[in-house]
Amino acid sequence: MSNRVLNIVGKPVKKVDGVELVTGRAKFAGDIRIPGTLHGYQRRAGIPAGRITHIDTAPAMEVRGVLFVLLAEDIPGPNIMGILPPFDQPLLAYDEVRYEGESVALVVARTKKAARAGAEAINVEIEPLEPILSPEDALKEGARKIHQGGNLTFERKLKKGDTVKGFEEADVIVENTYETSFQEHAYIEPETVLAVPGGDGRITVYASCQSPFHLRGHIAANLHVPAAKVKVVQAYTGGSFGGKDDVAAEIGILASVAAVKGGAPVMIAHDREESIIGSNLRHASKIHYRTGAKKDGTITAREVRITLDGGAYASESPFVTMKTIIHAAGPYHVPNATVECRAVYTNKTYAGAFRGFGVPQVTFASESQIDELAAKLGIDPLELRRKNALRAGLPNATGQVFEQSVGLVETIDRIREHKNRHTGAKRKQDDTGRWLYGAGVCCMMQGISNGAEGIDVVGASVQMGQDGSVLVGVGLTDMGQGSRTVFAQVAAEVLGVTMDRISVKQVDTDSVHDSGPTIASRATTVGGMAVFKAAGEVKRSLSKMASLMLKCGEEEVDIAENFVLHKKDKNVRIPLSEVATAAYWTGFPLMNLSFSRAPDADYDHDTHQGRIYIAYNFGTHFMSVRVDRYTGRVEVLDHVAAHDVGRVVNPLGVEGQVEGGSLIGYGLAHLEKVETRDGCIINPNFSDYAVPTVKDRLPTRTICVEDENPTGPYGAKGVGEPPVAGAAAAFANAVSDAAGVRFVRLPITREDIVKALG
Amino acid sequence: MSNRVLNIVGKPVKKVDGVELVTGRAKFAGDIRIPGTLHGYQRRAGIPAGRITHIDTAPAMEVRGVLFVLLAEDIPGPNIMGILPPFDQPLLAYDEVRYEGESVALVVARTKKAARAGAEAINVEIEPLEPILSPEDALKEGARKIHQGGNLTFERKLKKGDTVKGFEEADVIVENTYETSFQEHAYIEPETVLAVPGGDGRITVYASCQSPFHLRGHIAANLHVPAAKVKVVQAYTGGSFGGKDDVAAEIGILASVAAVKGGAPVMIAHDREESIIGSNLRHASKIHYRTGAKKDGTITAREVRITLDGGAYASESPFVTMKTIIHAAGPYHVPNATVECRAVYTNKTYAGAFRGFGVPQVTFASESQIDELAAKLGIDPLELRRKNALRAGLPNATGQVFEQSVGLVETIDRIREHKNRHTGAKRKQDDTGRWLYGAGVCCMMQGISNGAEGIDVVGASVQMGQDGSVLVGVGLTDMGQGSRTVFAQVAAEVLGVTMDRISVKQVDTDSVHDSGPTIASRATTVGGMAVFKAAGEVKRSLSKMASLMLKCGEEEVDIAENFVLHKKDKNVRIPLSEVATAAYWTGFPLMNLSFSRAPDADYDHDTHQGRIYIAYNFGTHFMSVRVDRYTGRVEVLDHVAAHDVGRVVNPLGVEGQVEGGSLIGYGLAHLEKVETRDGCIINPNFSDYAVPTVKDRLPTRTICVEDENPTGPYGAKGVGEPPVAGAAAAFANAVSDAAGVRFVRLPITREDIVKALG
Repeated sequence: MSNRVLNIVGKPVKKVDGVELVTGRAKFAGDIRIPGTLHGYQRRAGIPAGRITHIDTAPAMEVRGVLFVLLAEDIPGPNIMGILPPFDQPLLAYDEVRYEGESVALVVARTKKAARAGAEAINVEIEPLEPILSPEDALKEGARKIHQGGNLTFERKLKKGDTVKGFEEADVIVENTYETSFQEHAYIEPETVLAVPGGDGRITVYASCQSPFHLRGHIAANLHVPAAKVKVVQAYTGGSFGGKDDVAAEIGILASVAAVKGGAPVMIAHDREESIIGSNLRHASKIHYRTGAKKDGTITAREVRITLDGGAYASESPFVTMKTIIHAAGPYHVPNATVECRAVYTNKTYAGAFRGFGVPQVTFASESQIDELAAKLGIDPLELRRKNALRAGLPNATGQVFEQSVGLVETIDRIREHKNRHTGAKRKQDDTGRWLYGAGVCCMMQGISNGAEGIDVVGASVQMGQDGSVLVGVGLTDMGQGSRTVFAQVAAEVLGVTMDRISVKQVDTDSVHDSGPTIASRATTVGGMAVFKAAGEVKRSLSKMASLMLKCGEEEVDIAENFVLHKKDKNVRIPLSEVATAAYWTGFPLMNLSFSRAPDADYDHDTHQGRIYIAYNFGTHFMSVRVDRYTGRVEVLDHVAAHDVGRVVNPLGVEGQVEGGSLIGYGLAHLEKVETRDGCIINPNFSDYAVPTVKDRLPTRTICVEDENPTGPYGAKGVGEPPVAGAAAAFANAVSDAAGVRFVRLPITREDIVKALG
Repeated sequence: MSNRVLNIVGKPVKKVDGVELVTGRAKFAGDIRIPGTLHGYQRRAGIPAGRITHIDTAPAMEVRGVLFVLLAEDIPGPNIMGILPPFDQPLLAYDEVRYEGESVALVVARTKKAARAGAEAINVEIEPLEPILSPEDALKEGARKIHQGGNLTFERKLKKGDTVKGFEEADVIVENTYETSFQEHAYIEPETVLAVPGGDGRITVYASCQSPFHLRGHIAANLHVPAAKVKVVQAYTGGSFGGKDDVAAEIGILASVAAVKGGAPVMIAHDREESIIGSNLRHASKIHYRTGAKKDGTITAREVRITLDGGAYASESPFVTMKTIIHAAGPYHVPNATVECRAVYTNKTYAGAFRGFGVPQVTFASESQIDELAAKLGIDPLELRRKNALRAGLPNATGQVFEQSVGLVETIDRIREHKNRHTGAKRKQDDTGRWLYGAGVCCMMQGISNGAEGIDVVGASVQMGQDGSVLVGVGLTDMGQGSRTVFAQVAAEVLGVTMDRISVKQVDTDSVHDSGPTIASRATTVGGMAVFKAAGEVKRSLSKMASLMLKCGEEEVDIAENFVLHKKDKNVRIPLSEVATAAYWTGFPLMNLSFSRAPDADYDHDTHQGRIYIAYNFGTHFMSVRVDRYTGRVEVLDHVAAHDVGRVVNPLGVEGQVEGGSLIGYGLAHLEKVETRDGCIINPNFSDYAVPTVKDRLPTRTICVEDENPTGPYGAKGVGEPPVAGAAAAFANAVSDAAGVRFVRLPITREDIVKALG
């Protein structure tokens, strides 16, 4: 816990763009109007597997308003959209189609309606193939190869200690298999891009996206122009959660190629159905756990085998694979662990990044098993977790030891306090016999930073005007999570200015260093650090100037609330605007572009032993529920989420992240199920696919534990993803407790509950 | 002269935006179309002096389409637009009007036509005052004060050596008074801005402008918001020449205030008439010169008294005053010099920055006098100049000594060679008696960098993509002069990439350090240096990475034509894209924001003795003409301009600057005259105000002398302004030679010539 005195970091501040967002003034990509804009609509395969034998675009050209059609051969570059090796995903399919939502053509017309009609009119002849619809079928000997290299997308293994010996030492062993379903991101704004050919030989793409630098690289490659000719601007983005990366690149490229060909701006704005069938989902999984422990509860070994259904293309499957094995042993000191994970191709919509990135799946499975172990040992589930909890100085499953910022035990203790104060935690049956009461806990951890996923760098610029106001630019996107507000707070804290003097730019690829994708809960930590550094450099100029003006040492200068002060005599103060103006005219730079780089991961690729993430967020969730035994309806009565966030930058922001993330976890655990028939999604809309709505809002209370993270600004670490896993696992344990039945498959739907209760 | 081997610097390259410009694809501010854009039109005073007694906007509101009217009281900030102290210029006049083009109100309407009709409809009652129309009248005892502080805007003095003694030492003394007229910038694109209120609480202003950071500061102040809330983007700009600074700020503020009030984009696009009467002109001047010399031609003393007519407001008058006194002694070793200059308020359109910034006026006068001195001494004019020419190691009029990059003598010698080869230089009379032949030379110098005008800093960013392409951003604007091309060449040279891999961003205030105004021929020198530094930092990352890949020292790495090479074995080469990609993934920064700062001026403000500019461009022009004795028509038969540019970056660019600048000088010397009656301009259009057209194109040949400037990139120094003075002075001397009459007033019109020839 820190005792540094801070003025702005740690204070509850409203989102810097909150007013614009709630008043509708914020411009999303679809809100941008440029006269003469054309519209693109994709023609999709419509069947999960087959060989394209013929495409006749003539019928589309007869639709009034249709201008041209793009096929694979019209893409100047390599016609590839996969954002990572093995680059297996064509932008427009030309020989084989591998999932129903795969694009075959783009129709460009004067209106979206005409483009859509044109897309429907195209005659695409596909010779159907028997679709492969499960990892099991895909890995069967002799199975048809979905890709040339076979159907195994990626596999990795983690090996720590000696599992055989660990299980020999165990007094009890529990073992079970768990499953999770595909989940749709269901952001409120479907994917949208607008590509505008510039008058200067460059092209600007306004995109609802997560990783503008990804887009730039892909667009340039497929346009076959230097990356410097492409500018990607992130428009306001109505949610992404990992979803607007591959598909944003896909439509960003298509719109750009069309804009260059058409010599006019081109917009592609997905319908909800396209958004569901045509962009990546959360991996469905099947996970086998075996855990051994001594009578006193000490875990001696864990063995985990994970199979991820990755759908038709690799997307982020390799990295999700790695993330699951790193997290599968849970936030515990497990001396002996073996984890294997494989991602498999099937003829379904491809799976990729989704808030949590594999961790919710393994956390649900792992924490279910910990409850099973507690039951078998007769130990209180929370005490069993506390006994095994990672602490500073203990190695985690990858053998990495953190000497600080491992606040798990404190989160457990805060949850224990809460439980002890509330009776809702106890199971009881009501008088009518209708309601079953139960409660569950879970512990979790989530790696912060890119870690094993590669270099983690972020660029940030901080520019002070001569009036002392500050403009901050960061290469990471705010998709609703509030990172612009965090960046503003960090800059305000460093520079001693009030929040009203700070603006945070929307991201564009021209302005800052390529900062990679906005993923892995790294914005606050690595992005915040870049702002911290850049603001620090501007502060140096101000301190130098002020020391000349105040005739004192630079170290005696302080800045607070838009005034420069002499530390020893706070009555000696100059308005910051005067110091900034003087600094400018004296030649001290008032702008800096900094570069924050997280320490590289360093580990053995065969065993995943080594340093991987720069920090972990640790958390403990408690949830109590009552279950309607006749309808299966679940009411969440209480939900408390305690997370070690290192340092709270904005309490309102942390609450927002915990509440939002928990709701996604609740959807995963209870409501959401992408249903398919013969490989086609049959509920690609919000009537049939149930996402949590505002009516499902959980009664979440957030508890922040602050165990300072030395790699983050002011000790902060991210909290974007962790609550997803926490809420999903706590829900499963609470419902299992209420029902007296162990549920091993997510979502646990009403039907599942009714069925289980007989 | 340098013997460094360069690949791209020094080579003739086409303008990086040439294709866009000639094909009409380049977007000027007036080309930007946003649905719902409103239009503003200014109501002007219409009389040169008076007191506003009443403004009735009601009639304007009755014009169909008019939405609202802005008056002075509607400006949230200080309602000031003067870009420099004494900040004497109101944005919208409210008590007194001081020139006919002064704005009193802005009418905002759905169309420009309606806005204009509304502006005409406003009832502005002004009680006329007797206008003061000459500096002589303004400075008369008891004259009405145009401004509270009186009618003397600014005065300064340069004093070197002992002029009294200098004249005593002289064998001959020549003395004369010269005059120059107001000159209009006459850029092809009148002033235009578009202010767009953003969805993020900020406002973006697209402007045809010269100094976006000036605009930002003024807009923020007058909107009364932090500067960080304002983004100014320089749209393609169709010429500026110093003209789009004050007026761009004026309409930028007005459009912004209107956009915020109206909640919609607002465009203000000036008509040609508005452009002429409502924005600054080149100062009219009256200059008295007295020069003493020994019989052998050695100049012993010069005494100069300059009066500048600055019109109604100060604008850049203070700095033009300083520039004239620094340059008045000419590019000669003048041991004793006294120069006085005063700028005076009159009730005319204000004067301010214009390519050359006072130097053309004094150069014309000074070089006329040198010719008079040569005639009196019987010495060849060119030899007289060579005898007195500044050389490395000799102090100029401010006592500053340059040890290099003083290539004046070489420019004289190159002109002498040219003259000797061509007979056109000799005066002759044709058989018909109609044509009078003559020739003239002049020498000139022009300070490079802000010098006495204040801190000279430029920010530049260089960003390399993983594909090895390069995006360059600089805080200085390209208004047609080709600086984007120069910046691209410097970056390409440093980074070893080909020109097709480089893009140069349009300037916006968000992206780079406040780089001050784009003036004083400093873009290539100070701006180029910033690019040089930023590119150098990116190159360091590449060299580091390549040294790891090639297993050699960083100093052994070379980059050329998109390949990284081992210096000792050029067959060892890796595509730059691979090195850039590796550097990114290894964590070596591929973007840098650098800051170039010219050494500060350091001089005595009373005498102007000291270090002022970081370099001077020196030049010698030769012009031969024939004059039609009956019509006064002048044909320029030959024009050679030799300039010491330090190092040629782009020969085509230098030629363009010399040809364009010379044409402006020719206009000043022969065609252009802003004519007034009772204080109102009577020729505010291109039918009555004669600007040189393509038909007037001079037969200019450019000779580059390269005497490397240590403060510029690769030794370069600017050449934007110098040719104006050179061509104007050479023209005056050539025509005087042909006519056998000394003309002492610019322009020397056909009427003047006919009159002089009787």
